[in-house]
Amino acid sequence: MLSLLDLSRRIDAGDLTPAAAIDRTREAIAAREPEVGAFVRVDPAPAVATAGPLAGIAVGIKDIIDTADMPTEMGSPIHAGWRPRADAPVVARLRALGAVPLAKTTTTPFAFMDPTATRNPHHPGHTPGGSSAGSAAAVAAGMLPLALGTQTGGSVIRPASFCGVVGIKPSFRLLPTVGVKCFSWALDTVGLFAAGVADAARALALLADRPGLDLPPTGPGTIRIGLVRQDFCAAPSAAAQQALTRAAMAAERAGASVHDLALPGLFGDAFAVHPTIQGFEARQALAWEYAHHREALPPALRAALDEAQGIETQAYDGARRTAHHARRSLKDVFGDGGVDVILTYSSAGAAPAGLASTGDSRFNRLWTLMGVPCVTVPAGTDDGLPLGVQVIARFGDDGRALAAARLIEQALA
Amino acid sequence: MLSLLDLSRRIDAGDLTPAAAIDRTREAIAAREPEVGAFVRVDPAPAVATAGPLAGIAVGIKDIIDTADMPTEMGSPIHAGWRPRADAPVVARLRALGAVPLAKTTTTPFAFMDPTATRNPHHPGHTPGGSSAGSAAAVAAGMLPLALGTQTGGSVIRPASFCGVVGIKPSFRLLPTVGVKCFSWALDTVGLFAAGVADAARALALLADRPGLDLPPTGPGTIRIGLVRQDFCAAPSAAAQQALTRAAMAAERAGASVHDLALPGLFGDAFAVHPTIQGFEARQALAWEYAHHREALPPALRAALDEAQGIETQAYDGARRTAHHARRSLKDVFGDGGVDVILTYSSAGAAPAGLASTGDSRFNRLWTLMGVPCVTVPAGTDDGLPLGVQVIARFGDDGRALAAARLIEQALA
Repeated sequence: MLSLLDLSRRIDAGDLTPAAAIDRTREAIAAREPEVGAFVRVDPAPAVATAGPLAGIAVGIKDIIDTADMPTEMGSPIHAGWRPRADAPVVARLRALGAVPLAKTTTTPFAFMDPTATRNPHHPGHTPGGSSAGSAAAVAAGMLPLALGTQTGGSVIRPASFCGVVGIKPSFRLLPTVGVKCFSWALDTVGLFAAGVADAARALALLADRPGLDLPPTGPGTIRIGLVRQDFCAAPSAAAQQALTRAAMAAERAGASVHDLALPGLFGDAFAVHPTIQGFEARQALAWEYAHHREALPPALRAALDEAQGIETQAYDGARRTAHHARRSLKDVFGDGGVDVILTYSSAGAAPAGLASTGDSRFNRLWTLMGVPCVTVPAGTDDGLPLGVQVIARFGDDGRALAAARLIEQALA
Repeated sequence: MLSLLDLSRRIDAGDLTPAAAIDRTREAIAAREPEVGAFVRVDPAPAVATAGPLAGIAVGIKDIIDTADMPTEMGSPIHAGWRPRADAPVVARLRALGAVPLAKTTTTPFAFMDPTATRNPHHPGHTPGGSSAGSAAAVAAGMLPLALGTQTGGSVIRPASFCGVVGIKPSFRLLPTVGVKCFSWALDTVGLFAAGVADAARALALLADRPGLDLPPTGPGTIRIGLVRQDFCAAPSAAAQQALTRAAMAAERAGASVHDLALPGLFGDAFAVHPTIQGFEARQALAWEYAHHREALPPALRAALDEAQGIETQAYDGARRTAHHARRSLKDVFGDGGVDVILTYSSAGAAPAGLASTGDSRFNRLWTLMGVPCVTVPAGTDDGLPLGVQVIARFGDDGRALAAARLIEQALA
């Protein structure tokens, strides 16, 4: 994979110009893209900044995120060829930092569950996950050092886990969702894919203008890890369970304290209401598409929106209250529970075979609803396909999630 | 003015067809628009639904809200002629209810403070307020029964007060801001303008799919009103003070209990941090415009964005914490304070003379930041220009704010 930090070091040292770095990225794309299919389009002649903390860094932009110089098509013929007037703020920020938004990456239609044609770089017969399929696959295939995705259920953490890269879904609204096609305004979160935890931390620190998120060279000191198995949803694969155990043991060997943490029943309730919030908001967010282009919607999304028409407003209001109570209670889990971070599954297992399904998000949905920072780190493989583990911190504590994730990454190395 | 309820009753009774109701709206526009200037464009041949709870209701859409069939120009040459692909969800919802989004109404550029050319229907030498200038003026001039606006500081309540109409800024995100040009994602709120409180209540109940918001024919029973003078900001005009006293006395005569309510100092702190949150988010939300079209930005907005570049991330994070604490504390003000609603100023006075300024939002900003429902009701005039008073309820209690506002409206009649 292409390490953002490594590229930046070589550019800073004068060993590589930003233009040469972009050219190398292009060569990698030319070599791997035919078999992976991660891109909707690659800008043939982008402006390349010669300075800035992300100079020479080519970035993939999920194709539900507005770009002024390339169409933004939402993975759907309904928006084919659509040209936004303005860059989304996250894209404008990338440019201001010297990065090159080089390509639009594939997305499932409107970032729901109908698959893309993108293939898992570790095995072309397997899905890369979704909905941020192209962003995860492009980083995994070594075609880009950085890519933007979004998560409403599990659309950053799951594909990152399936593709064997680091993914971060930051605290809710740490990165603005302005100019990002909305599916659910209470849930949609912009996230990042990178080769390693330190690469992701550097990118997030710059994008969010919070230098403290950049990882220091020293470790996080003693860190208290609560091991959470999310028993409110169906069990993961045996390989995913082994990966979690492996990560926990590695963290202990590296000096962390690890203990089992059972979440109160309220979190099972919150997990269960995620689809109500998502569906009620999606039927509004996509009301124009549903009213005017229902037949052009892909089958899973069409069926989901058909069903969402029946969600009662009271059910939505009740779901929001449940989520609100769970968010408050989660502060106590961290505070009174004596836990700095939670360690749990990133996904139910490795990437499923075939491209018909993007896998499921059941180990991600609660955390998206809680708005807390989540980082997935590769933690082994199952029959050659990557498996990740997920590190979660309290709201606003993205730096601690990253520090603990790096500790695990290094302990597993 | 055109009453939505009155029009709907006549349509339901068969005295008026929806098409005839739209034609009458057009005639009113032809008569008053030349002197008011409330519209960016009026659809010459809109589809008119023959059924639906808002059939025959023509609606003005502030020109920062996306419409698929009319350009959306943000009040700025930077977005001149821009055609969104999709309707914003609030617009799609209007159409689903049978309403006709007939016209785009003037907005200050990007809904900030640089004025429009729109005139106050009560006196052409005075501002209608802003930023939702055209929506307030169109309803006040009897050209439309309903219009959509947005509020980030005071852009619904202030122009409604200046123009002598009812305005409601509902609870944060009761109406989705998807497809609305963002200025500040923590603050932007879609609101409504109508001739009377019951008209606004009907429209909000339908748009938000919450039938309970539609006002029942009976009154709200005994209602406890806390009179708040917002002493943390400069005093309003003598006429505004008299209007507030007049409204409080009328409410008492109508059976409400009214007592003075002093807010804890935390609310002054929250009031003071509103510009920090707004500025920090606006510089991101408008990053593309600032980077590529700074010279085309109007002077007040350009200066505000210049200044906002210097806001420290830490200051923003601190401001959000202050707002969070104040939101929690406000629940206690209502709960322990024994108050159902707050009654306060809608604006610092009547509409200022001239069109150079849209007035100031100091009596609105705290409540936008708190996310609570606010309704302004006309409460007399100052030298022929309208004055409003503002009724505020706790978050999610929009129905109570409307019920109390109608009590005051009727008591003042």
